[in-house]
Amino acid sequence: MDAALDYARSHSDRFVEELKAWLRIPSISTDPEYAPQTRQAAEWLADNLRLIGVETVEVMETGSADKPGHPIVYGEIHVSDDAPTVLVYGHYDVQPPDPLDLWDSPPFEPVEVDGNIVARGSADDKGQAYMHVKALEAYLQSGQDLPVNIKLMIEGEEESGSVHLPGFIEANKELLAADVVLVSDTALFAPGVPSIAYGLRGLAYVEVELTGPKKDLHSGVYGGGVENPVNALARMISDLHDADHHVTVEGFYDNVRDLTPEEREAYKALPFDLEAWMEEAGVKTTKSEKGYSALEGTSGRPTLDVNGIWGGYTGKGAKTVLPSKATAKISCRLVPDQTPGEITDKLRAHFEKHVPDTMTLDFRDLHGGHGSIVDTTAPAMQAASVALEGVFGQKPHFTREGGSIPVVADFKKILGLDTVLMGFGLDSDSIHSPNEKFGIDRFHQGIEASIRFMDAYAKQEAA
Amino acid sequence: MDAALDYARSHSDRFVEELKAWLRIPSISTDPEYAPQTRQAAEWLADNLRLIGVETVEVMETGSADKPGHPIVYGEIHVSDDAPTVLVYGHYDVQPPDPLDLWDSPPFEPVEVDGNIVARGSADDKGQAYMHVKALEAYLQSGQDLPVNIKLMIEGEEESGSVHLPGFIEANKELLAADVVLVSDTALFAPGVPSIAYGLRGLAYVEVELTGPKKDLHSGVYGGGVENPVNALARMISDLHDADHHVTVEGFYDNVRDLTPEEREAYKALPFDLEAWMEEAGVKTTKSEKGYSALEGTSGRPTLDVNGIWGGYTGKGAKTVLPSKATAKISCRLVPDQTPGEITDKLRAHFEKHVPDTMTLDFRDLHGGHGSIVDTTAPAMQAASVALEGVFGQKPHFTREGGSIPVVADFKKILGLDTVLMGFGLDSDSIHSPNEKFGIDRFHQGIEASIRFMDAYAKQEAA
Repeated sequence: MDAALDYARSHSDRFVEELKAWLRIPSISTDPEYAPQTRQAAEWLADNLRLIGVETVEVMETGSADKPGHPIVYGEIHVSDDAPTVLVYGHYDVQPPDPLDLWDSPPFEPVEVDGNIVARGSADDKGQAYMHVKALEAYLQSGQDLPVNIKLMIEGEEESGSVHLPGFIEANKELLAADVVLVSDTALFAPGVPSIAYGLRGLAYVEVELTGPKKDLHSGVYGGGVENPVNALARMISDLHDADHHVTVEGFYDNVRDLTPEEREAYKALPFDLEAWMEEAGVKTTKSEKGYSALEGTSGRPTLDVNGIWGGYTGKGAKTVLPSKATAKISCRLVPDQTPGEITDKLRAHFEKHVPDTMTLDFRDLHGGHGSIVDTTAPAMQAASVALEGVFGQKPHFTREGGSIPVVADFKKILGLDTVLMGFGLDSDSIHSPNEKFGIDRFHQGIEASIRFMDAYAKQEAA
Repeated sequence: MDAALDYARSHSDRFVEELKAWLRIPSISTDPEYAPQTRQAAEWLADNLRLIGVETVEVMETGSADKPGHPIVYGEIHVSDDAPTVLVYGHYDVQPPDPLDLWDSPPFEPVEVDGNIVARGSADDKGQAYMHVKALEAYLQSGQDLPVNIKLMIEGEEESGSVHLPGFIEANKELLAADVVLVSDTALFAPGVPSIAYGLRGLAYVEVELTGPKKDLHSGVYGGGVENPVNALARMISDLHDADHHVTVEGFYDNVRDLTPEEREAYKALPFDLEAWMEEAGVKTTKSEKGYSALEGTSGRPTLDVNGIWGGYTGKGAKTVLPSKATAKISCRLVPDQTPGEITDKLRAHFEKHVPDTMTLDFRDLHGGHGSIVDTTAPAMQAASVALEGVFGQKPHFTREGGSIPVVADFKKILGLDTVLMGFGLDSDSIHSPNEKFGIDRFHQGIEASIRFMDAYAKQEAA
């Protein structure tokens, strides 16, 4: 694979410029106003795949004619019936960039700062998806034989819950048939410390609205005689945790797979710098479930967080309103074997049981995704380990990650495939926050690791 | 005074049209963007006063040259050194109209619906202030001798805390010297049931902001390891009340003047329709401090309400953010002898004591006003009783109101004057809410009551 590696190294600057061009397209999938730009980002990728020599390239529609989804970019290169097939998954859509005023530069005008590309989507996930595209180009354009069959599936709805993806996979089982899935949408354990994520958390995301008075009231005229929905919602949110920071929702922990003693040992063996982690998060102290470290709490244990809250007057000055409504977005990070449907049902039951008789409850299920745990001894996991050791000169750690990639569970359920999570992000990349960034060095390391993975995986399967 | 009453009745339609013209000027004092329109509303009133024959009319500046306030409209008619002097106070500024989408018609385009004028400021307080202006016109233009000296002071900052008014009164003590203050900015007890408010509540209004992480974080990466400011603020808000709906802030009730047995009897004697009140508020059930009725809770007891809350992602869809900040506007309605300074200090001490070590607290004092209680046997209170009996054919009830008119305490403190609160609003007028309205019948009753008050008060003081 040396020719492919050489090709990648000698074209690294151009690869960066191409990535910037892709990042300039604001493919915000959660905002319907950005649907045209989201499609544009898909077409851009398809054009690039055709350019580098991928034979089969298609921009495939999702959803229905009257309620279209964002398209999926599919590309395929078949080299041999004897070679194993790798299904590469990624996403070209990005999180909304707000709050805009906290960005140091416009989110869709990539700039290089201290060796990083700063732009929305740079790390999550355009930058990481594009590593595999460029690894493929390195094989196809250097004359090096591609050692595996490749199927690329880059979707545009990951940040809005991948609503159409399970149906798409279900409908295209034969097209997507493979031996393993390769995904780069997670993080290195630390700069220069490679890791392979074997666990992901799931997600149950709901919206809860309490309505008290049927309209906003004057707090002087009515205050002291009617219950205030903001106060009532605050009480309900407060009651969702006990003093040990356990979630109080009935049955919440029923299906939690406890961390094994071996896992807890592995957590302790990680080169984790708590001070640096707190500095990066910008917090004075950690707060996790009683009995668990911050690292365990953020990856191996389930959580409940309010993602947003609003109600009443939020402008300048002092408006003396007693609000009609208060609303909160609340989500739980889940660990196997919790499921989003189960936890959403338990949340609903909890709110229905505890809503005061002064309030009307509207409970809305926004979305959910399954968590996952993969066997670290599988051939593809071992190939990833070889690839990363080749790039970094040290064996990677196997870790659990706190975020959600629901599609990983779908790959298992629908296609029967395990997923190798070989990520090159960093927790300090500010994904989902202002000034998202991705290290240019990591972009190139990722390309090299992808080249090495294809080689190592073919050998593992042949052995 | 019959000529004045006849004049008012025969010009009633024109009076309504004039009021509508004034209501078309969006004098939103809390919003700096509306400063020009707020001034325009003042100038409009001054022109009207000149037109009806008020000798001395002046638009007087407030604040400083580099930080100007909204002007005060002053008008004066001196008829005799022997006649008593009535200082009429009102305000021409209005509450912000949002949420705009809940208005059935634009807030600054007055329309007549079921005998009401629907517009922001119709009841609070342009419509009620204008009653006294038209009563004055009725005396001046009908040839009827005005029986009292009149000083009119209509300000433009009532909805933003009357920040410059105390200083203005202090600086103009001689100009404003009078025997009593007359204010129409309160409500009739019920349609056709006249009342005079002898008690008002005060206000302490603060804003509390908690900052956890220094920036918004990804709830997958950090959730379970750092405290969420929305959850923390919800807990702090929840803890502000106990299970009996008492406020838990230390010393909160220390200076509360308890309702007397006579007052509690008077509350019971009021023709209060609880079902209709709940219907109007749009609530299924009441919620008041344990041991007190809704009517007592909304006027004779202090409260704590959240007026607004915000934090994290509040747009469409499911953004998985762990927010950096959460903010709430919180206000207490106060009763004598609580003071805003005292209660704000106690709130600050409470928040400083209970803020978790994971959070940074920013506590901001937005504004405050004193409550008041006036002796119901004073001559002006009795004159108001005579005037209302003349209009409605029944003696008015003496009541306590839940809202705040901080200037009433200032009139007492600075000028030594009691204030007669002769209001013509209704709790159903939706002041501070969408579709604010004022009954055209009440507008005319108010003009007549003002005419009758001037007559009865001159006689009371002469007796």
